[in-house]
Amino acid sequence: MSAGAPAVSTQGPVLIVGTGLLGTSLALALRGAGVEVQLADTSPTSLALARDMGAGQPRGQGAPEPTLVVVATPPDVAGTVVAQALADHPGAVVTDVASVKARVAAQVAEAGGDLSRYVGSHPMAGRERSGASAADADLFVGRPWVVVAGQAKAGCELVVRNLAVDVGATPVRMGAQEHDAAVAAVSHVPQLLSSLLAARLEDLPEAALGLAGQGLRDMTRIAASDPRLWAAIVVGNAGPVAKLLRAVRADLDQLLDGVSSLEAPGQPGDLVSPGAAWAVSELMGRGNAGHDRIPGKHGGAPRRYAQVQVLVPDSPGELGRLFSDAGDAGVNIEDLALEHSAGQSVGLAQLCVEPSSARVLEEFLAQRGWRVVPA
Amino acid sequence: MSAGAPAVSTQGPVLIVGTGLLGTSLALALRGAGVEVQLADTSPTSLALARDMGAGQPRGQGAPEPTLVVVATPPDVAGTVVAQALADHPGAVVTDVASVKARVAAQVAEAGGDLSRYVGSHPMAGRERSGASAADADLFVGRPWVVVAGQAKAGCELVVRNLAVDVGATPVRMGAQEHDAAVAAVSHVPQLLSSLLAARLEDLPEAALGLAGQGLRDMTRIAASDPRLWAAIVVGNAGPVAKLLRAVRADLDQLLDGVSSLEAPGQPGDLVSPGAAWAVSELMGRGNAGHDRIPGKHGGAPRRYAQVQVLVPDSPGELGRLFSDAGDAGVNIEDLALEHSAGQSVGLAQLCVEPSSARVLEEFLAQRGWRVVPA
Repeated sequence: MSAGAPAVSTQGPVLIVGTGLLGTSLALALRGAGVEVQLADTSPTSLALARDMGAGQPRGQGAPEPTLVVVATPPDVAGTVVAQALADHPGAVVTDVASVKARVAAQVAEAGGDLSRYVGSHPMAGRERSGASAADADLFVGRPWVVVAGQAKAGCELVVRNLAVDVGATPVRMGAQEHDAAVAAVSHVPQLLSSLLAARLEDLPEAALGLAGQGLRDMTRIAASDPRLWAAIVVGNAGPVAKLLRAVRADLDQLLDGVSSLEAPGQPGDLVSPGAAWAVSELMGRGNAGHDRIPGKHGGAPRRYAQVQVLVPDSPGELGRLFSDAGDAGVNIEDLALEHSAGQSVGLAQLCVEPSSARVLEEFLAQRGWRVVPA
Repeated sequence: MSAGAPAVSTQGPVLIVGTGLLGTSLALALRGAGVEVQLADTSPTSLALARDMGAGQPRGQGAPEPTLVVVATPPDVAGTVVAQALADHPGAVVTDVASVKARVAAQVAEAGGDLSRYVGSHPMAGRERSGASAADADLFVGRPWVVVAGQAKAGCELVVRNLAVDVGATPVRMGAQEHDAAVAAVSHVPQLLSSLLAARLEDLPEAALGLAGQGLRDMTRIAASDPRLWAAIVVGNAGPVAKLLRAVRADLDQLLDGVSSLEAPGQPGDLVSPGAAWAVSELMGRGNAGHDRIPGKHGGAPRRYAQVQVLVPDSPGELGRLFSDAGDAGVNIEDLALEHSAGQSVGLAQLCVEPSSARVLEEFLAQRGWRVVPA
């Protein structure tokens, strides 16, 4: 069920500066593995909460020197805090977990920090809620953890890689610029486009919202994220984000040029503009190609699962019964989605399975009385 | 399990012109309800396939006059075909199922069609695959079906509302302009923004794609859609789409103004631009508000479900076992999502339940040995 007890290679004690979601989750994971954890935070309330959750003890006078310091502050102050930690703990490796890396490293260098002991980290983990109360020892399990060695000694980089492995994450080595360009594309710009789309819904009539389907829901899910946190992230990665947004705007301009050519009033008839159709299909063709490059759940090239679709009444236990029946069929469900329409008492469950199992599952479920919808 | 046998109120025979996905699915649904269906298509191959699937008989010489004609051709020719059907069958109600409505109605009027017998339809149903071979009698079950009466007589509108009900859909009355503005916002512009985002992935390094998480996957799922079909849809709804895209571009320009102000080279330090942070958080605040307006699965204001999170090993039967256990707990699962990272053998299942049931389910699952992650 769990990641199991980690084969701990992190040598204690570890000092964690910042007891928010990431810092406290990391502390809990290390404590669970038997590592001594020291805590620090500018907020006594947050510090006490983390301690009470079992995340470790506040670092006091005369405490043993940490071998590793993890800076888990908000991204805008991470560089300053890292530089201070390098000065305060001259024998320790120092890392941070901010979601931007070049800017933090530049701040450390500017403050005269010892870059041979500084390793940047970015665990690709998080959740909508923040703070120590949302912390979770399993937060990093199964997630990539980017390690940016920069000018650090090999031994220091290894300490941080081991930290990632010890909490169940997969270390991924990258340069700072490479990391920042990557997260701009896979995280920051997707976030901003989701918000751009959702902002259009603010003044939409109720009746129009009633036609919303799964596409709109998928496209706006992350638009519910925290504006303050994201302002700090985007400010810290302004260069790569701006570069991509300009490319998006260039594509949007081209699309609008094409579509606007059809707006001439009084021509509702058979006017077809090859320019407009071309603008849309050219963009969508590139979107098809980009979509196909996203790795599947196991990494590597996307796997093509077969889809089994089943109508599920919206009453207690039906979904449970469906999955129970699927389990009885001995078929592993690789992924799934539920689709609903407003005002309806039935949903469409889409079960992704290995292509070789689809037929078996469909027949089994049909025998158990489910309405299987050909996918 | 199913929508049940419909209380058929549609008086046969029904002529369906165009045996693609929508036309054939509609024919199958009506045949299942015992209605006589006549088929027509410019492609003899497509027509024969639909007949062989049991969708009805090709309309031949001397066949009885249809009381209802459904035009299910591509959207760019729908208006012309509707006008022809109104002329050919002076006693019949004629409807079409194109996803744009004002343009089709204008084409019918231009061709001198009898608007008192023309009712526009837009069943909010579809799938990634197209053609008769993907057809499905349950395609419309539980979906909204927009009915645009225009200048049609009340009796004609009723015939089309009954058609929707007979195939399991929910009729929603709208004006043509109202419909077109609504689908531009909830369907067409989301599609184009998904493609704009996915197009940015075409040249992204493999390593960056390896950091992709659920947010990017959700945002690009519909970017896999068919460029040709969508070119026809967007061309047919150019006005409302262009209006919204211009509003998106205005927001994007404001965002870019803010973010670009941070790009000045040689200032990696503590420079913080209130303009950039404001631009991001202002946009995201509006995105939050727009997101919160999307109706929940039962329509009306979004319901706030509690989330129960469970780690699930990626091996056969585990997900089935989880849902079986959830069923045993007597808790109805309202919605769910699976989260994976590349290269990992464990996933995070997020189960949405009534807030009053969350605690019960968590404790029950923990007792059964599941690793429950505090949400």
